[in-house]
Amino acid sequence: MTTPSPVPDAASMPGKIMLVGIGPGSEAHMTARARQAIEEADTVIGYVTYIKLVADLLEGKEIIRKSMTEELDRAVSALDAARQGRKVALISSGDAGVYGMAGPTYEVLFQAGWTPDDPVQVEIIPGASALNSCAALVGAPLTHDFCAISLSDLLTPWPTIARRLDAVAMADFVVALYNPKSGRRTRQIVEAQRLFLRHRRPDTPVAIVKSAYRRREQILFTTLDQMAEAEIGMLSTVLIGNSNTFVRHGLMVTPRGYANKYDLEQGGNTRDGERRGRSLSTGLLGWLDTLQAEHAAGLDIDTLAARHRLPVDYIRSTLLDAVTETAAQAEASA
Amino acid sequence: MTTPSPVPDAASMPGKIMLVGIGPGSEAHMTARARQAIEEADTVIGYVTYIKLVADLLEGKEIIRKSMTEELDRAVSALDAARQGRKVALISSGDAGVYGMAGPTYEVLFQAGWTPDDPVQVEIIPGASALNSCAALVGAPLTHDFCAISLSDLLTPWPTIARRLDAVAMADFVVALYNPKSGRRTRQIVEAQRLFLRHRRPDTPVAIVKSAYRRREQILFTTLDQMAEAEIGMLSTVLIGNSNTFVRHGLMVTPRGYANKYDLEQGGNTRDGERRGRSLSTGLLGWLDTLQAEHAAGLDIDTLAARHRLPVDYIRSTLLDAVTETAAQAEASA
Repeated sequence: MTTPSPVPDAASMPGKIMLVGIGPGSEAHMTARARQAIEEADTVIGYVTYIKLVADLLEGKEIIRKSMTEELDRAVSALDAARQGRKVALISSGDAGVYGMAGPTYEVLFQAGWTPDDPVQVEIIPGASALNSCAALVGAPLTHDFCAISLSDLLTPWPTIARRLDAVAMADFVVALYNPKSGRRTRQIVEAQRLFLRHRRPDTPVAIVKSAYRRREQILFTTLDQMAEAEIGMLSTVLIGNSNTFVRHGLMVTPRGYANKYDLEQGGNTRDGERRGRSLSTGLLGWLDTLQAEHAAGLDIDTLAARHRLPVDYIRSTLLDAVTETAAQAEASA
Repeated sequence: MTTPSPVPDAASMPGKIMLVGIGPGSEAHMTARARQAIEEADTVIGYVTYIKLVADLLEGKEIIRKSMTEELDRAVSALDAARQGRKVALISSGDAGVYGMAGPTYEVLFQAGWTPDDPVQVEIIPGASALNSCAALVGAPLTHDFCAISLSDLLTPWPTIARRLDAVAMADFVVALYNPKSGRRTRQIVEAQRLFLRHRRPDTPVAIVKSAYRRREQILFTTLDQMAEAEIGMLSTVLIGNSNTFVRHGLMVTPRGYANKYDLEQGGNTRDGERRGRSLSTGLLGWLDTLQAEHAAGLDIDTLAARHRLPVDYIRSTLLDAVTETAAQAEASA
C-alpha cells in the first residue's frame, strides 16, 4: 500500500518554458515534440496568428495572445507564468531560433537574473523554418550555400542590412528574404533589388511564397528585375536564386554541382581529372597547387588575387603557409 | 451491389517519390508528415547512417542502402522503383532541400525527361535542418541574419567557397559550416578560420555540435582563434557567431537588436527618437534622410560610401532617386 504524496503548492512546483517552433503552420509539418509540448503546457503564449494555427490543441489551456511587436512582453509573461509553476509553451511559426522567440526570451531571462540552475527550465524545440517550407514547395532552390536576411529595419539599422545584401549578392548565395515588405515598409525590397542587380543577372529566378502550407498558400515565380513589382506581403518569403539556379516546368532548382565532376549526359562518368568521392581538381589542395605554380611562373600576388577574386592578404598568407609546409616536409625527409 | 474493381497491374499503378527530411534523427523531432511518408512507402532509399536512424519504421519494406557519395545513384534508384509503381521514400537527415536529396533528385528526373505531368509524382517533405537543431541545443545563436556554407570541395571549387566565407565574415553574419571536416579534408576549416580572422575578433564565439539529438550528441564551445584545433568530424556542424553573439552560462545567444530600440535596463522604455512598432531612426527612411543631409552639407559621394561602408554607386543611385522623388513631390504639390 502506498501513501499518496502530498500535492505540492504552486510556489514549489518548478515551472518550465518551452520555446516551440511549430513549422509552417499545418499540423502535418509540426514535429512530434512540438505537438507534445503544446499538449503538456498549461499556458500558451504567442502572436495571435500563430495561436490560431494551433487552435485545435488549446482546449482548457490559458492562452495569452500578443501583437506582432510585443516579443519582449511575451518573454516576460512566459517567465512570470513559469515562476508560478506553470508549464508555458511560447510558440513561434517556423523555427523558434530563426527570427523567433528563442533570442528575445534568453535576453529577458538573463536580464531577470535567470541561469540554467534556476528551477524554471527552458527547452527549445526546433522546427522547419520558412526557408525550408517555402523551398520544399517551389522545388530545390537551397541545394547550395544560402543565407537568410530580414529586411525589417525595426531593430536593425539599414546600412547593416544593405551591407549584408551586397555581400551575399556578390558571393553568389541563394538568399531567403524574411519580412520583405509590410504596409509601412515598402521601399526595402526596392533597395534590396537595386543592391542585387549590381552583381546578378536581371533574369535571376525569384520565388515568392505566401502562407506556405496554410489555407491561403500562394506561389509566384518571377525574376530579379521584376521582383519589386510583385505582390509581396507580411506573410511572404522571397527566395532569390544563385547564378546557377534555373526554373524548369514550374520548379526552381539550384544544382549542387554534379556537373563539375560528372558528365551527366554520358551516363554519369567522372570527368577527366576528377575522382568519385574525392575533392575536385579545383578543390582546396588542387587550387593551392595551381596557385603555387602560377606564383612560381612569375605572377605576382596582386595579379593572383584579381584572377581568383580573393583578398590580396589571403593569397599572400596561403602561399606563405604552403612554402613553410614544403620546407618542413623537405626537412623531415632530409 | 458493387463489382470490385480489378486489381491494377504494377505497370499501370502510379509510383511516387517522397523526399523526406527526417530532422536531426530522433523520432521526437520528425514531422508527422515525414513519419507518415516513410510508413506509406514500399521502398526506402538512403545513406546507411540515415537508414539506421529510422530503423523502427522500416519493417516489411524494401531498403536500399547507399554510401555517402552515391547521391545520383540514390535518385536513379528512386526513379526506377517509382516507374515500377512503387512508393519511394528517399530520406535525408535534416531538411531534404538543404544539402539534401531534393536537388540531385530533380537533376536526375529532368535528365530522364520527367516533367510534373508524369505519372510519377514527387513530394518534398521539409524538416528541421542541422542548423536549426544545433542552434536549439546551444541557445539562440541564429536570432539574426545567418548563412549556411558547406566546406566540402567534392563538388564546389575552393575559390567559390573562399569568396563566400570572406563575404559573410565581412558582413557579420552568423554562419553555420556544414561538412566542416573529414578524414581527407582537414585543411578547409583552417582556411575558413584564416578568412574569418581577417574580419572578426579572435574571441568570436563558436559552437561545435556533433550528432545533435542522437545518442552520441556532443556540444563544445570555443572561439574563432581556437576553432581549427577543436575536435570536428563528419557529423559536426560549426556555428560561428556574429560580432554581437555572446556565451553566458553555457548558452550561445545572438541578440535580435532590442537594445537598439529599448532601454532594457530601464524597464524596456523606448530610447529617445525611437517608436514601438516602427522602423529605427537608423532604418531605411531615417538613413536616407541622414544621407541627403550629409550630402547637402557638402560631403561627396566617395566620403559617404566610406563612412557608411557601402558601394559608391549604391550611394549615388540612392541619392539620385531621393532627389527625383523630392522633385516629383514638389511638382505634385505645386
